[in-house]
Amino acid sequence: MVNNLWQIKQTDYKHNDSGKYETVFTLANGYKGMRGWLEFSKYGIPGNLIAGIFNQADSQVTEIVNNQNPLKISMYADNEALDIETCEVLDFDRTLDMKEGILYTTIELKTKSGRITKISSERFVSKNDVHRWGIKYTIKPVNYSGKIFIENVIDGTVTNSSFDPMNKTKHLNVKELYDLEKGIALKTVTKDKGIEIVEGILLKAEDGVLQNRKYRELGEEVSEAFEIRVEEGKQYTVEKYGVTYTSRDTDKDPFELLKDNMDNFVEKGLEEEVRLHKEKWNETWDKIDIQIKGDNQAQLGIRFNLFQITASASDEDDRVSIAAKALHGEGYKGHVFWDTEIYMLPFFIYTNPKIAKNLLMYRYNTLEGARKNARENGYIGAQFPWEAADDGTEVTPKWGVDYDGNPVRIWTGDEEFHISSDIVFGIWEYYRATKDKDFLVNHGMEIVLDTSKFWSSRVEYNEEFDRYEINRVIGPDEFHEHVNNNVYTNYLAKWNLEKGVELAEWLKTENKEVYDNLLDKLEITEDDIKEWQQIADKVYIPRDANSRVIEQFEGYFDLKDIEITEHDENGMPIWPDLQGYKLGETQLIKQPDVVMLMLLLGDEFDNETKKENYEYYEKRTMHKSSLSPSMYSIMGLTVGDTRNAYRYFMKTVMTDLEDNQGNAQLGLHAASTGGSWQSVVFGFGGVYVNKEEILCLNPWLPEKWDELSFKVNWRGNILNISITKENVSIKGTDEAKIKVYEKEYSIEKDKEIVILR
Amino acid sequence: MVNNLWQIKQTDYKHNDSGKYETVFTLANGYKGMRGWLEFSKYGIPGNLIAGIFNQADSQVTEIVNNQNPLKISMYADNEALDIETCEVLDFDRTLDMKEGILYTTIELKTKSGRITKISSERFVSKNDVHRWGIKYTIKPVNYSGKIFIENVIDGTVTNSSFDPMNKTKHLNVKELYDLEKGIALKTVTKDKGIEIVEGILLKAEDGVLQNRKYRELGEEVSEAFEIRVEEGKQYTVEKYGVTYTSRDTDKDPFELLKDNMDNFVEKGLEEEVRLHKEKWNETWDKIDIQIKGDNQAQLGIRFNLFQITASASDEDDRVSIAAKALHGEGYKGHVFWDTEIYMLPFFIYTNPKIAKNLLMYRYNTLEGARKNARENGYIGAQFPWEAADDGTEVTPKWGVDYDGNPVRIWTGDEEFHISSDIVFGIWEYYRATKDKDFLVNHGMEIVLDTSKFWSSRVEYNEEFDRYEINRVIGPDEFHEHVNNNVYTNYLAKWNLEKGVELAEWLKTENKEVYDNLLDKLEITEDDIKEWQQIADKVYIPRDANSRVIEQFEGYFDLKDIEITEHDENGMPIWPDLQGYKLGETQLIKQPDVVMLMLLLGDEFDNETKKENYEYYEKRTMHKSSLSPSMYSIMGLTVGDTRNAYRYFMKTVMTDLEDNQGNAQLGLHAASTGGSWQSVVFGFGGVYVNKEEILCLNPWLPEKWDELSFKVNWRGNILNISITKENVSIKGTDEAKIKVYEKEYSIEKDKEIVILR
Repeated sequence: MVNNLWQIKQTDYKHNDSGKYETVFTLANGYKGMRGWLEFSKYGIPGNLIAGIFNQADSQVTEIVNNQNPLKISMYADNEALDIETCEVLDFDRTLDMKEGILYTTIELKTKSGRITKISSERFVSKNDVHRWGIKYTIKPVNYSGKIFIENVIDGTVTNSSFDPMNKTKHLNVKELYDLEKGIALKTVTKDKGIEIVEGILLKAEDGVLQNRKYRELGEEVSEAFEIRVEEGKQYTVEKYGVTYTSRDTDKDPFELLKDNMDNFVEKGLEEEVRLHKEKWNETWDKIDIQIKGDNQAQLGIRFNLFQITASASDEDDRVSIAAKALHGEGYKGHVFWDTEIYMLPFFIYTNPKIAKNLLMYRYNTLEGARKNARENGYIGAQFPWEAADDGTEVTPKWGVDYDGNPVRIWTGDEEFHISSDIVFGIWEYYRATKDKDFLVNHGMEIVLDTSKFWSSRVEYNEEFDRYEINRVIGPDEFHEHVNNNVYTNYLAKWNLEKGVELAEWLKTENKEVYDNLLDKLEITEDDIKEWQQIADKVYIPRDANSRVIEQFEGYFDLKDIEITEHDENGMPIWPDLQGYKLGETQLIKQPDVVMLMLLLGDEFDNETKKENYEYYEKRTMHKSSLSPSMYSIMGLTVGDTRNAYRYFMKTVMTDLEDNQGNAQLGLHAASTGGSWQSVVFGFGGVYVNKEEILCLNPWLPEKWDELSFKVNWRGNILNISITKENVSIKGTDEAKIKVYEKEYSIEKDKEIVILR
Repeated sequence: MVNNLWQIKQTDYKHNDSGKYETVFTLANGYKGMRGWLEFSKYGIPGNLIAGIFNQADSQVTEIVNNQNPLKISMYADNEALDIETCEVLDFDRTLDMKEGILYTTIELKTKSGRITKISSERFVSKNDVHRWGIKYTIKPVNYSGKIFIENVIDGTVTNSSFDPMNKTKHLNVKELYDLEKGIALKTVTKDKGIEIVEGILLKAEDGVLQNRKYRELGEEVSEAFEIRVEEGKQYTVEKYGVTYTSRDTDKDPFELLKDNMDNFVEKGLEEEVRLHKEKWNETWDKIDIQIKGDNQAQLGIRFNLFQITASASDEDDRVSIAAKALHGEGYKGHVFWDTEIYMLPFFIYTNPKIAKNLLMYRYNTLEGARKNARENGYIGAQFPWEAADDGTEVTPKWGVDYDGNPVRIWTGDEEFHISSDIVFGIWEYYRATKDKDFLVNHGMEIVLDTSKFWSSRVEYNEEFDRYEINRVIGPDEFHEHVNNNVYTNYLAKWNLEKGVELAEWLKTENKEVYDNLLDKLEITEDDIKEWQQIADKVYIPRDANSRVIEQFEGYFDLKDIEITEHDENGMPIWPDLQGYKLGETQLIKQPDVVMLMLLLGDEFDNETKKENYEYYEKRTMHKSSLSPSMYSIMGLTVGDTRNAYRYFMKTVMTDLEDNQGNAQLGLHAASTGGSWQSVVFGFGGVYVNKEEILCLNPWLPEKWDELSFKVNWRGNILNISITKENVSIKGTDEAKIKVYEKEYSIEKDKEIVILR
C-alpha cells in the first residue's frame, strides 16, 4: 500500500507522547493556533493561542497567552465517561491531512461495563475565515442502545505553563459567561492590558438528536449538556461550531462580532466552511508545495514543514509576526526572534510575498519599541529587541535559574545586537525578490535608516587602530558571551550601514518628498549619512591574511580547541570531554556563526573560503539549536560536502516529527520549517540571487531523489522548477533571465525549457 | 502471616475502582468528611463535605456541598509529574488503619525518563480537633539526585455531581484567596445562603528543605509551589497542615479562627495532633469495638462499619445528623432519612449516648421545618420530612427521570409518612436505654407531642367501619406506592399516639411546669390528648383472624404472587420473571416492612407470628436496599433461621467493602453500618429490652465464631459481654439485673459472671 504522502499519522496512544502530538497536530491559520489536544483525555495540555495576545501578570516578562479552552467536551455512554485513560482503547487513529488542513481522529472505546463507542472527528481551523473553527463528530454506539451525553464546555481556568509548578501563570480574568440558547460563549480579559477574548461554541445535529439541553455556569467554565438517545449500530453526527474574536479585532464589543459570525456560520453550515477552507489550502499548496519523488520520508517531512509554517502566518494582520514556536505552543513565551527574518522569511518571500511583507510590517509597526530600546540603552535610532512580543520593546527575560536554582543572568537581550541587521537583511532580501518599491519607500526605508542610525551609535571607535569595533556582544553562537568583534555581528552592522547609505541615495532619487520627510522625522542629516559610510568603511572585520578561516570573534582561536569526534545514532554530535574547561572557554559552538554570515552574504566570500570555514566550524558545532542543521546542509551543498547535506536536511525536516531536539511539546520549531524550505530550494535546488540580481540555480540531488519540483515567485513571475537526474526544467508565468549551472537562459512566458544536466 | 484485623488494604491501582476506594478510605470526624481521593491521579473525584453545609443553586433540591479541595497537591521529579497514570507504578499500597484513624499510602513511581520516586503518606482528619487535618509525606528519590517540585493547591473549581454532565452544579463562589506567607487559604461562599467556608493549608519541613516558594492566584485556585533539592536515596519529610472553618462555626470571620488555629497547630506540630487523634480513637474503640474470634472477614468487616459510622457522627454539633451516605459522598444529596433513627441510632444509644442525643436534637432543632411541612400539607403538629437537610423542611426531589428521560414523579416525600413515628421510636429507645429525663422533658416530649398532634390530623375516620385509616402512603417497602393502611405505618402511628398519651401523663407528673408550657406552646389541650387515645384505639390494623401472616397493606395479598427462586453467586435474589406485571402489581418487596414492624415492636407479636411472617416475606424480598439484609439477619436469629442469618449479616457487613450494592462510590451505606452493629448485638448477641425494661440476652453464634465480645451502655452501666460456644460472661461497671436465655441474673459491679450456655 502506498503511504499517503499528505498525511501524518499517530496510530498508538500513549499519554506521555501527548505533548509532541499536540504540537505536530496543531491547526492554525495565522490568527489562532489550536494545539492537537485530544479531548478524550484529562492528560495533555490544551493550547489555544491567538496571535498578538500577550500578557505578563506575575511572570518575568510578557508572554503569549494560552486562552480559554473551547475544545473541551465530555461524552458519556450512559453514565460512563468516554475517556481514553479509563476505557479500553479498541482503535485509535489520528491523521493530519495536510492537503486539506483537517485533523481526523478515530477512537473506539470500551467502557468498564462493556459499552463500545466509536467516535470519529474532523477538526479544522478555518483558513477561509480565521475567526471560525469547527469539528464534526460522528458517534456510533457499536454494541448498545441507550443514551449518550455530551457536555460542551469553554474552560476559562486555563493557565500558561500549567506543567510547571514554579512558573504557572494565569493571564486571564473570566469576564462574562453567555448562554446563547443555541450555544455558549465565554469572555476573558487579559490582566494587564485588558484585551478581551471571547470564544463561542455551538453544537448542531439533525432535529431531535440533541435533547434536554442543560446550560450551566461553573465558576470559570461555561457548559451546555445534551442527551442523545442512541440505537445500537447507528451513527450520530454532531457538528461543533467555534467562533473567536478579541478586542484586537474590533472597536466594538467582540462578543457582538462573534454572535453575528456564529449566526452566519451556522446558517451556511459547517460543510460549506470546510469546503472553502479546503479550497484555500488547495490554492496555497499550489504555490508552496515541494515534490520529492523517490524519497517518501523527505516528501512527507517537507510537506509537514510547509504546512505548519504556512499555518503560522497571518494573511492579513501586519501587527503580528511568527514566534519561534509559532502558534503551536507556549515555548519561548511566544516571542519573535531573528528566526523569522533569517529562517522563515525567505519561504514567504518566494512563495507568498504578501505575507513576507506583513512580517516585515510587524517590525515597522513596532519601531517605537525599538527606538525605546535604543534610548534606554544609551543609543540612538532603532534597536530591535532580541525577543519581541507585541510592541517591539525588549522582552528577553533578564534572569533564568541554573540547575542549582541560582539566578543566572541571561545576556542575549543585552548583547545579541545582530537582530537589527537581520531585519534589514530581510527587508533587502524581500525587496530584491519582489521589487516592492511601495513597501521599501514607505516602510522599509524607515527601518533601514533608523537601524543605520542605531549602529552609528553602537560602534566604538578604536583610536589606536583607527577602526570601529563592536564589543561585548553575543553572535549567533550563544555559547560565547561578552565577546568582542564577532565577525557575523560586525559584518552585518557594516552591511547595514552601507545599505543605509546606498538606499538613502536611492530614495532621494526615487521619492524626494519621502526622503526629506523621513530624514526630518528620524532627525537624520545628510552629514550623518556620510558619517555612516565612513564608519562602515572602518568597521573592524577580524581576518588573518594567512588563513581563509575567519576567527568567529577576537580571541576565539586562542580558546581550547576541542573537536567533536563521536555522533549518536541520529548522527548528532555527542558532547566531547570538556577536559575541565567551561563551554565558553572552548571552540565548541552551538550553531553556525561565521558559516551563517557566508550564507547570508554569499557573494562576499569565495568558494574556497566558504569551504575551509565550513570544514573548520562544522567539526566544532554541537547543533544545540534547531537553527543549525539546515544551514550546514545548504553550505555543505555549496562547498560540495554532499555527504552530510542530506543527513542535515533530514534532521531539519524531521525536527518535530521525530522530536530530535526533544522539546517538540513546547511548540513548533518554526525556524526549522523555514530552514527546511531553504535546505530544499537554496540547498538542493541551489537557488541564489547573484550580485547582478539574476536568479541562479545550481541544483544537486541526493542519490535516491528521482525528481525535485518546486515553485518560486521571482518578482511576480511564478517559476515552476523541476529537477531530475537528467535535466532541469523551468517554466515561468512571465519571461525571465535565469542562470543554471552558471549559464544564462532566457525563459519565455508559459514555455517550459529543459536543460540537460 | 496473620492478617491485621484493623486494616483495610488496597494493593492494586485501577482508576475504575477509584470511586469505591474514595468512599471506603474516607476519613471523617463528624464535622468534615474527606473522601479517600488519591492526589497522584487526575482521575477520581475529590470529596470535601462539611456537615450542615447545604445549597441548592440550580439543582432540583438543596444538597450537601462538595467544598473546595485542599488535598490537591502536585509533585514533580524535576520536570516530570509524579502522576500515577503517566508513570510506571512500581509499588502501590493504601491501608486504612482503623485503630488509629490513619490512611497510609505508599506509591513508587517511575517516570518516562526513568526517575524512581517513592512517596509515603499518612493522612488523618483529626478526631481531637475537628477543624484540623493533615498529611505527612515522606518522599524518597530512589535513583536520582536533583530537584523535586511540590505544588500545594486549594481548588475552588469543585462542583457537585462532577461525573454527571446533566446535573453538575457549582454551589460555591470563590470569595477570597489568601497568601498566609506560611501557607495559603481560600474562602468560598455558598450561592444561596451565603455560608462561608475557608480552607487553609501549609507545608512544613526541616529548615532549608522547602525552597523558592512561589505563591500564585490562579482564578478559582490558590497555589504555592516549592523546590526541594534532593539526593539519591535520602528521605524528605513534608508535613501538610490543614484547617477548616465555616461561618456556621462562628459569628466572627471564619478566616480569623482558621489563622489562630493554624498558628497553634503548627506550633504544637503535626505529630502531637496525630498523637491526640489516635488517643481519641483508642478511647472510642474501647467503647465500640466488637471482637469476633475465628472469623477474620467478619472481624475486619464489622470494624470497618464501626469505624465509619463513628467517623460520621459529630461529638458536638446537635444541628446536624448523619446522612444516608454520611460524609462519604454526594449520594442522596447528603439528605437524612429514617436510616438514622432506625438503623444507626441504636449503635450510638448503646455505645455513645451523647451522640445519640445529638442526633435526636437535630430533629428537635428542625421542628420548625417539620411544622411547616404539616401546615403546607394541610395537617397540624409536626410532620418530619422523608428527606431532611438543614432545616427540617421536606427536600425529597419531586421529580426524577425514567430511563427514557421522561419525568417521573417521586412520591416518597409526599407519602412516606412513617418517618415521624420512626423518630419518636428513636426517642423512646434512647430514653429506655439511658433514662435521660432531662432530654425527654425538655426536648423529646415536644417531638412526641407534636408528632402525635400530626397523626391526629393525618388519620382519616372511616365511618362505615368506625375506624381510623391512613390511606395513600408508602411504607418501608417502596415498590408499592399509594397504598392504603400499610400495617407498618398504621401500627407505628397508633404507637406514636399512644406514646403521646402515655408520656403526656408522665410529664404532667414529672414536671408540671414544662407540661403546661409545652401544651401551651403547641396549642394542645388535654381534650386533644384524650382524643389521641380514642384515635389510637381505633387505628385500623389489618389482620386476618385465620392467619398469622399480616397483610402488608390492604390488597397486598391480592397482588400477583411471584416468589423468588434463584439467587446469584453472592446469595442475593435474582429478579424472577415478572410475567408482564408491573413491579407494584406483584407481591415482590424491596425490603422488610411487616418484618420491620415486628423487629421494632417485638413485644407486640408472638414468636410464631414473627416466624410465619419472616418466612412469608423473606421469599418475596428483593433486598434492593442496603437496609434489608441486616434486618432479615436479626429476625432470622429471632425465629431460628440461623441458616440465612450469617449470610445476611455478611452481606450487610461487606456492603461497601465488596460493593455488593454496586454504588459504593456514591458514599457510605450508613444505614448498613448501623445495621451491621444491630446484626451483631441484637442478632447474634440477642440483646433486647423486654416489656419490663430489663435488658435480655439470647445469644447464638455461627459455627466458626469462637468468641463474640462487645460492650453495651445500659443506663450508664457499661456491660462487657463475651459469648463463647460454652458460656456467656458479663461484667458491668455497675450492678444490674439481666436476663440471659430468659433467666434473670443479678450482676454486681465490676464482677464478671459466667453463665454456661
